[in-house]
Amino acid sequence: VSSIDLAVIPGDGIGPEVTAEALKVLTAAVEHDGVEVNPTHYALGAQHWLETGETLPAAVLEDLKTRDAILFGAIGAAPGDTRIPSGLIERELLLKLRFSLDHYVNLRPSRLYGTVGSPLANPGEIDFVVVREGTEGPYVGNGGSLRAGTPHEVATEVSLNTAHGVERVVRDAFRRASERPRKKVTLVHKHNVLVFAGHLWKRTVEAVAQEFPEVTHDYLHIDAATIFMVTDPSRFDVIVTDNLFGDILTDLAAAVTGGIGLAASGNINMDRTAPSMFEPVHGSAPDIAGQQKADPTAAILSAALLLDHLGHHQAARRIETAVSADVESRTGAARTTAEIGEAITRAVREA
Amino acid sequence: VSSIDLAVIPGDGIGPEVTAEALKVLTAAVEHDGVEVNPTHYALGAQHWLETGETLPAAVLEDLKTRDAILFGAIGAAPGDTRIPSGLIERELLLKLRFSLDHYVNLRPSRLYGTVGSPLANPGEIDFVVVREGTEGPYVGNGGSLRAGTPHEVATEVSLNTAHGVERVVRDAFRRASERPRKKVTLVHKHNVLVFAGHLWKRTVEAVAQEFPEVTHDYLHIDAATIFMVTDPSRFDVIVTDNLFGDILTDLAAAVTGGIGLAASGNINMDRTAPSMFEPVHGSAPDIAGQQKADPTAAILSAALLLDHLGHHQAARRIETAVSADVESRTGAARTTAEIGEAITRAVREA
Ligand SMILES: CC(C)[C@H](C(=O)O)[C@@H](O)C(=O)O
Ligand SMILES: CC(C)[C@H](C(=O)O)[C@@H](O)C(=O)O
Repeated sequence: VSSIDLAVIPGDGIGPEVTAEALKVLTAAVEHDGVEVNPTHYALGAQHWLETGETLPAAVLEDLKTRDAILFGAIGAAPGDTRIPSGLIERELLLKLRFSLDHYVNLRPSRLYGTVGSPLANPGEIDFVVVREGTEGPYVGNGGSLRAGTPHEVATEVSLNTAHGVERVVRDAFRRASERPRKKVTLVHKHNVLVFAGHLWKRTVEAVAQEFPEVTHDYLHIDAATIFMVTDPSRFDVIVTDNLFGDILTDLAAAVTGGIGLAASGNINMDRTAPSMFEPVHGSAPDIAGQQKADPTAAILSAALLLDHLGHHQAARRIETAVSADVESRTGAARTTAEIGEAITRAVREA
Repeated sequence: VSSIDLAVIPGDGIGPEVTAEALKVLTAAVEHDGVEVNPTHYALGAQHWLETGETLPAAVLEDLKTRDAILFGAIGAAPGDTRIPSGLIERELLLKLRFSLDHYVNLRPSRLYGTVGSPLANPGEIDFVVVREGTEGPYVGNGGSLRAGTPHEVATEVSLNTAHGVERVVRDAFRRASERPRKKVTLVHKHNVLVFAGHLWKRTVEAVAQEFPEVTHDYLHIDAATIFMVTDPSRFDVIVTDNLFGDILTDLAAAVTGGIGLAASGNINMDRTAPSMFEPVHGSAPDIAGQQKADPTAAILSAALLLDHLGHHQAARRIETAVSADVESRTGAARTTAEIGEAITRAVREA
């Protein structure tokens, strides 16, 4: 490709600020290779819902499907804003995109940069990736309530897990592990309690492992995994887990590696039947929105994951190298969102 | 009462070793008050299952129901032992006891002792308690699988939540908060995704909060809660959460406060329609079993929770004071399980 047809969904809060920087960096990174970025911006999110009542209209979803990839900022109302039903935008926009575009690999790398402060006293070397299932599990929205609001209310949530859904994400995790130096997969679940889903995951890992004799694998219950995440995070190489456990573990991993300001993610459709979407793990942080206080690094690293997915590996490496250098040279002096973005853009351009 | 009719389930692995010490300390603690402990030991657990095929026979359950309280060690086979179906003993013994005896308050205090090493660089003062729901949620065992072992397998897990179950545990959390200096309840859930269960919990917290005007409350998604657990654990006072989120958070909390060797828990039936059960949060640790290497402190602190539940508050304080003094004076020199237990017993006796 000599151009990237890019959908950009800046979203709410700090989303537009960090996305703007990610787009600058991304554009600079592929310039080297003579590739042009053609961005199309989409107004979607809590603010857009307040103005129009729309979350994700069918026509917009269809339009998004024609793009090469999606760069996503962050969405969500301010916590106190009671005009927006809680979770509505998350479900009707973010999760709807992940499910509609079959983003079955929710990829979340975690790395501790040398100079970044971890809350851990002895973090050791941290460099792992969580392959979180993105299209099923407890996230399917399959629940209900009976006699809501009465003393006899019963509320259910159903976790749906399929061989199809589990196998493809487990295979992706093993493939990624086979390309990494340590070649190790850790399945995280809670199969002693969630027997049926847990055993499907366990059996699938055993089966797929046969295809990757060079990859070792082990298993941790989710509760034990959180312990290791703070006592021995360097034990992890590739973690594969379900949608909910992945949500929990990746926020914890982000905290342990110096904060959510650096945590990138990709919502990836590995079969390429629809565009993949790349977003920082952090939310819209309404409290600091519009103040140029947000760290755009997570959004910028998400753009690198985007380029990797589209096959622009050298451009992705340029971004990662520039981010590493920038992060390692941080002194603690405050910079604006744009200053960080511009510094990294400059480094990418000079690479 | 001038005697305690105590059921003791030592279990597997390090269970018998730590339970023996907890029983010594408990007995010494109530001696001051002229109270006798009459223990009845029950052989239950993975080893017992291997020998007899029994997990929890109906007659044993009925017998347990006649006791004042249950002191529980730890259960579970060695990880590699393929003779025992994975999770069988956990579900058919431990979870069956929690559900059958209606242990709706799974109480797990977390406190960082002055000299104990936390994996956190700046842990601050940590002193909170998790009130984990113990009788419903994703733990109900309500799942299934269709076409298991085929490429068309579908596996489900249903989380069941009732107004009855949520309200009683939320009220317990508020009551506990009202008796603590900071008087603060944090609800942890994921109501933006698990809408039906999440909203039941949220509405219930709002309603019960009306009864406790002196208690403040806030809300965190489980993913955000894990971040705060490592970046600002002192923000927590009383956490109330469901069975699965509570399982995850309390292991993380134990890690952050210096390890699972100190984490105590109570499975409490606050209506006293059946005996409550007290157990260390840790498992049976087969790798160090029988070697007098296990730290009995978590089991001993669980005995203090037991005494509190039975109304022997002074005896419970004696144990806590002795444990504090013991823990604060630890030098890192290795002591056997019995040495630690005897040191604490002596301190309790001399109190
Ligand atoms: C906003 C929310 C629905 C989302 C999730 O739970 O997946 C977020 O926490 C994330 O991890 O991307
Ligand atoms: C052994 C297991 C079933 C149990 C649980 O998940 O509740 C344990 O992890 C705990 O926290 O007591």
